[in-house]
Amino acid sequence: MHPSRRSEVPGFEVMRILGRIEELREAGRDIISLTAGEPGSGAPAAVNDAAAGLHASHTVLNYSPALGIMALRRALAEHYQRWYGVQIPAERIAITTGSSGAFMLSFLAAFDAGDRVALARPGYPAYRNILSSLDIEVVDLDCGPEVRFQPTVEQLETAHAQGRISGLILASPANPTGTMISRDQLQKLSRWCAEHDVQLISDEIYHGITYGEPAVSALETGDDAVVVSSFSKYWGMPGWRLGWAVLPEHLVDPVSRLAGNIALCPPHGSQLAAVEAFSPESLDFAASQVAGYAAARQALLDALPDLGWEQVAPADGAFYVYAHLGRHMHRWGDSSTYCQALLEQAGVAVVPGTDFDRVTGHEWIRLSLAPGAATVRAGLERIMQFHAANQNPRKNEVP
Amino acid sequence: MHPSRRSEVPGFEVMRILGRIEELREAGRDIISLTAGEPGSGAPAAVNDAAAGLHASHTVLNYSPALGIMALRRALAEHYQRWYGVQIPAERIAITTGSSGAFMLSFLAAFDAGDRVALARPGYPAYRNILSSLDIEVVDLDCGPEVRFQPTVEQLETAHAQGRISGLILASPANPTGTMISRDQLQKLSRWCAEHDVQLISDEIYHGITYGEPAVSALETGDDAVVVSSFSKYWGMPGWRLGWAVLPEHLVDPVSRLAGNIALCPPHGSQLAAVEAFSPESLDFAASQVAGYAAARQALLDALPDLGWEQVAPADGAFYVYAHLGRHMHRWGDSSTYCQALLEQAGVAVVPGTDFDRVTGHEWIRLSLAPGAATVRAGLERIMQFHAANQNPRKNEVP
Repeated sequence: MHPSRRSEVPGFEVMRILGRIEELREAGRDIISLTAGEPGSGAPAAVNDAAAGLHASHTVLNYSPALGIMALRRALAEHYQRWYGVQIPAERIAITTGSSGAFMLSFLAAFDAGDRVALARPGYPAYRNILSSLDIEVVDLDCGPEVRFQPTVEQLETAHAQGRISGLILASPANPTGTMISRDQLQKLSRWCAEHDVQLISDEIYHGITYGEPAVSALETGDDAVVVSSFSKYWGMPGWRLGWAVLPEHLVDPVSRLAGNIALCPPHGSQLAAVEAFSPESLDFAASQVAGYAAARQALLDALPDLGWEQVAPADGAFYVYAHLGRHMHRWGDSSTYCQALLEQAGVAVVPGTDFDRVTGHEWIRLSLAPGAATVRAGLERIMQFHAANQNPRKNEVP
Repeated sequence: MHPSRRSEVPGFEVMRILGRIEELREAGRDIISLTAGEPGSGAPAAVNDAAAGLHASHTVLNYSPALGIMALRRALAEHYQRWYGVQIPAERIAITTGSSGAFMLSFLAAFDAGDRVALARPGYPAYRNILSSLDIEVVDLDCGPEVRFQPTVEQLETAHAQGRISGLILASPANPTGTMISRDQLQKLSRWCAEHDVQLISDEIYHGITYGEPAVSALETGDDAVVVSSFSKYWGMPGWRLGWAVLPEHLVDPVSRLAGNIALCPPHGSQLAAVEAFSPESLDFAASQVAGYAAARQALLDALPDLGWEQVAPADGAFYVYAHLGRHMHRWGDSSTYCQALLEQAGVAVVPGTDFDRVTGHEWIRLSLAPGAATVRAGLERIMQFHAANQNPRKNEVP
């Protein structure tokens, strides 16, 4: 008996680190974790209260319709009208089990085995790992600082010339870089996809968490994109497993049939409670969390000259900072070793870039701002002490 | 732009019927629905109260570990010890997003594109539809009344001779038939799989809902099976989207890596609350629901001679009755027409067998006992009136 070849996807390094944090904490160590993309805030009060109410009254939670309850699909349609000024019929919005559920469903609905799908490297590793488990070929677009960590039409042209591309996955703001795609650039990419019959899938899970201009939705630049998002980040509800996909007409029926077979339905209680996520109080609460991430981001930007991280991706949005280790590479050799030493010596957890980029990720780290400004400040102080203590390579070497 | 070929899975006919029930009810019709596999009871009180408590205190619900919280994995390990007398390390139990999540993960972990996986026809349609969306070939085992609706070693031998079988999916009690596999038969099937390097996946979601002998688990007859189950049926929690897979050693790590990428984690609040599903009160509550299904089943069996359904699958467990239309075939031609007329004329919804069997399902219907004895009795009364009114084909024909 042996596992399938398709299951040979890498695990998340971040999961291993979370396990080690747990061990160290159980051993009494005080660990500052700047690892996961989890808002520390939890859900808006009104959402929690709605959930408490429906459970306290012992509401029977049966299967919902496969694409979710209409009340939530309608609330999301209004949200798109309010935030982006676009008219989306509620029937084109599929509620899913997190954005993860939306990726699985839209990848299956849009791509066959052997299709080639392009995406940026660095990027969220689950895209590539879900795609490859479905026998879809991943085409890396090498998106370093020189292209602001986001794909260009030129890169797509080159990849397409090497073999037809069937899909493009974009993320703006992106994980791990936080970098956003401008309206002009999104229009170009969107038009190129439409002209080449390429299915655009736009991950907009970090929309709302931005530090300058708001993020542009692919729904503003074309009619054929799949837009994926979730209540996990802006609304602080990762454990509720509730996301959605805005679908182009031609994918509504396929996703509906696939969802009814693959997932049956998204969590029903989460759906009922999430209708409250769009109340003015809930939206105010979410906005106040963004102000907290902004303060954490500023603290980090202020500390940059002292940190010696030599390149930092433009953190236009999301709650991550993706930084090149710069001079610390000489001391540690790669970011995994750096992260391990930082955790064991100084009790600060950040993650190496290797989860996000298998080519240059060993020179980069990702730091999460999601724990908020106070935690990030405390973490930075320890990081600088760690750097100082390790300035002379000889000093800390085991004899 | 076009959907993928792999997305060409049939939708559930039952979903269409649920939609029609909704319309009729909105138009003021009194409809008795004996369609879905949804317990009317809801979750045990202690589970609901735990969920109410954690939401009322605004507990932050972040991602859980990919395979679920240890407290629930340990509670399930104890459950397997208590119910079946088997020792399963908690590390081999993966909490999943419903049994649906467990099927997706175990199919991906065990089978590659092009592999052949055998299953009984009639059977739960999602097995075949998930498999085919993953480019896995479905091998039908024709399981009619002559083999008590369950696969035999002889059938497997025949299928294997036509091309190597990589997997076998069993369900006992089965949906739609309710028929169970005896210990002796399960031992034979289990041994055959082990001898032929065939991954056995045993769907045990209806365990606990049985009307004679308890169901036998594939964990009692071998070490290599994947056992899939859920809180949806016995504990009445379909909308909570919480299931699990008991994994053989060789699939723990692949499923863990796939889960971290594909699902991230199962619903965290559902997990925390479900620990209460194993309290004596919760187990008493679940057992009392089974007594209700048993009364509904008896009411149906008593009415059988008058119903004119000529063959009925042995409903050893689960909460369905799968019946051949018998003499009613002459009047209606197929079960879809029969079900539609029954719903429109008499306001009783049952589902045609076509979801479960694409070859002979047009002669069968599935009736759900899950709504309980009173509802089932009221439904049966209407069904008999419907039969009486349609005895003479000429009488009801539109002139």
